[in-house]
Amino acid sequence: MSDPFTMLKNVKETGKKVVGFYCVYAPQELVLAADALGFSLCATKEEPIADGEKTLPRNFCPLIKSSYGFAVTDKCPYFLHSDIIIGETTCDGKKKMFELMSQFKRVHVMKMPQSYSDDSDKQYWLAEVKKLKGILEDELQTEITEDNMAQAIKVLNNERRLMQQLSEFMKLDPVPLSGQDFLKLLWGRNFVVDRGEFAAQIHDIINDVKDSVAKGESAFPQGAKRIIVTGVPTGMGAEKVIKIIEDCGAAVVYIENCSGMKQFVTLVDENQPPLAAIAEKYLSTPCSCMSPNPIRMDNMVKLVEEYRADGVVDIVWQGCHTYNVESRVLKEHLKKNGNIPYLHVETDYSQGDVEQIKTRVQAFLEMVN
Amino acid sequence: MSDPFTMLKNVKETGKKVVGFYCVYAPQELVLAADALGFSLCATKEEPIADGEKTLPRNFCPLIKSSYGFAVTDKCPYFLHSDIIIGETTCDGKKKMFELMSQFKRVHVMKMPQSYSDDSDKQYWLAEVKKLKGILEDELQTEITEDNMAQAIKVLNNERRLMQQLSEFMKLDPVPLSGQDFLKLLWGRNFVVDRGEFAAQIHDIINDVKDSVAKGESAFPQGAKRIIVTGVPTGMGAEKVIKIIEDCGAAVVYIENCSGMKQFVTLVDENQPPLAAIAEKYLSTPCSCMSPNPIRMDNMVKLVEEYRADGVVDIVWQGCHTYNVESRVLKEHLKKNGNIPYLHVETDYSQGDVEQIKTRVQAFLEMVN
Repeated sequence: MSDPFTMLKNVKETGKKVVGFYCVYAPQELVLAADALGFSLCATKEEPIADGEKTLPRNFCPLIKSSYGFAVTDKCPYFLHSDIIIGETTCDGKKKMFELMSQFKRVHVMKMPQSYSDDSDKQYWLAEVKKLKGILEDELQTEITEDNMAQAIKVLNNERRLMQQLSEFMKLDPVPLSGQDFLKLLWGRNFVVDRGEFAAQIHDIINDVKDSVAKGESAFPQGAKRIIVTGVPTGMGAEKVIKIIEDCGAAVVYIENCSGMKQFVTLVDENQPPLAAIAEKYLSTPCSCMSPNPIRMDNMVKLVEEYRADGVVDIVWQGCHTYNVESRVLKEHLKKNGNIPYLHVETDYSQGDVEQIKTRVQAFLEMVN
Repeated sequence: MSDPFTMLKNVKETGKKVVGFYCVYAPQELVLAADALGFSLCATKEEPIADGEKTLPRNFCPLIKSSYGFAVTDKCPYFLHSDIIIGETTCDGKKKMFELMSQFKRVHVMKMPQSYSDDSDKQYWLAEVKKLKGILEDELQTEITEDNMAQAIKVLNNERRLMQQLSEFMKLDPVPLSGQDFLKLLWGRNFVVDRGEFAAQIHDIINDVKDSVAKGESAFPQGAKRIIVTGVPTGMGAEKVIKIIEDCGAAVVYIENCSGMKQFVTLVDENQPPLAAIAEKYLSTPCSCMSPNPIRMDNMVKLVEEYRADGVVDIVWQGCHTYNVESRVLKEHLKKNGNIPYLHVETDYSQGDVEQIKTRVQAFLEMVN
């Protein structure tokens, strides 16, 4: 298989359009309905951060600095070959970064409402989803029909159902997959060229896991401590804390963040008009950019019960103001609802604090249950 | 005159309601139309920051940490005596801080759209202004009538016109008032009990300034370098950089921020239905929370011309992501539009960097013109 630079160059030479995005708020059904390829843009590696810091404030979170460093140096193949980037105003840092990025790349920024609860939030967001549809049609010189949207909804809902099936296995004890391996599978969805092939692969993996379970194979011994990870995205390259937890012998049974299961747990309603249904699904994402963010709180308590978790580890990138403050709300919510053990880890992409985090995680694991 | 704690206690004993706010987006006409007293809440002093940091992340801007520190320790008389606080989602830090503040005080948070340009932004904001009207009516047990709003618009527009008149004098050379004294006058508007009396005072001050000008009195010698200050709010207690500039011998002829002239330069349209006119005026505020923020860019170039400024000093509190990135956009805009000299100062409320900033300001002043 060729490297992504070559693969994308070849794809582009066929006339296929490419759309890049950073965030799970980007409605991928519209990209698929436009017969374009949608890719998640590089943002989870430490290496380009120094390049990002040449322009952005150093006290920004590593995810934003990494994104910008990749973009400005053309080191991300998906960014380089994108016909258009979908940005979004989830946080102050990204919102303003996109202003700078617009100076050298075609970026369309979707404006988020400040919460998901009111009719005015829903209208604001629906207008943005409609606007994106028009922008994609113009930029990619295509038409996004109702039928294409309905079809795209089915394809992506199918992927979500497969991921949900996979996640069900993580409820077992012993746990068949490590959190790190599970993350790799979820992560793959960001770089799909042939969606049918991808679904078939996930289907095969599900069958493999079934076989493993039947044979009594598992990633951790029975009775291993069970941890739910939440907070900021922890994609491949930035899975440090998940690795630390599992190196300490506990199983990460659920990853409740944007590189984990968050994007897969709700489906687009296939019985509603497609555009409105797409808007509704994406707006229900329980991100800390929403104020307040009760869905996250409720979900966490349910997940702890369903996955029989012993504790919650809440990861926050340094400089991420929204998740950092919401940590306090979450900690209190978990305390009130069953005194659920909670650990707050504030870190970045560097390896300098690994030993320190390991010590804290070990102490946490000894304390729980 | 009694201290503010006693003054407010006495006011509250008469049955008068008090509304606190932090931001110039809070529509003060509605407070006035509800026959309540509106006060700006304490946020510009260093002393309570340590108390704020007990709960909030240390890498938040001093303004948020100071606000929260004042609030949580009941050291701000206006906060203590407020029947309701109007918050707003201008930035990630404040947005999430209000979630914590809501746990011990009645806070209503107004949701900002992400820009001021689209119809959907205007609708979103209008819905928020309408909602605030209902909330104030419920909380303060009053009715806000069309007539009361129209009357409040006239009163506050009159104050804005007076401030504009005052600002006109700053175009003169020599400059009759120092920027520091001008700031004190603008600042006074945040703590008005009797608005008629306040307008009369400003009127008298305008006459005094006229007399001074006639007598040839001035705050700086003719030909002093002329600086426009922009960026984050620099209210009394946080006027450090303005003082440094003037200590270096330059006149701060215009303060283009939220504690300066920003809130006074546009009026509420007295010929439109009051609620919609109020919404329109406030939404046009060129804050860096808007993305993009072209009004600020355009204003700055016009102001430099009108006030014959030699340079622009852009002040950003450490941790203020939106103003920090927008600085890059502003710097470039000023360069393209007449190569206007520009200095970026990132600081906080502490005095530790005064000498360092002074050295940079001196070098800047030597360089300009």
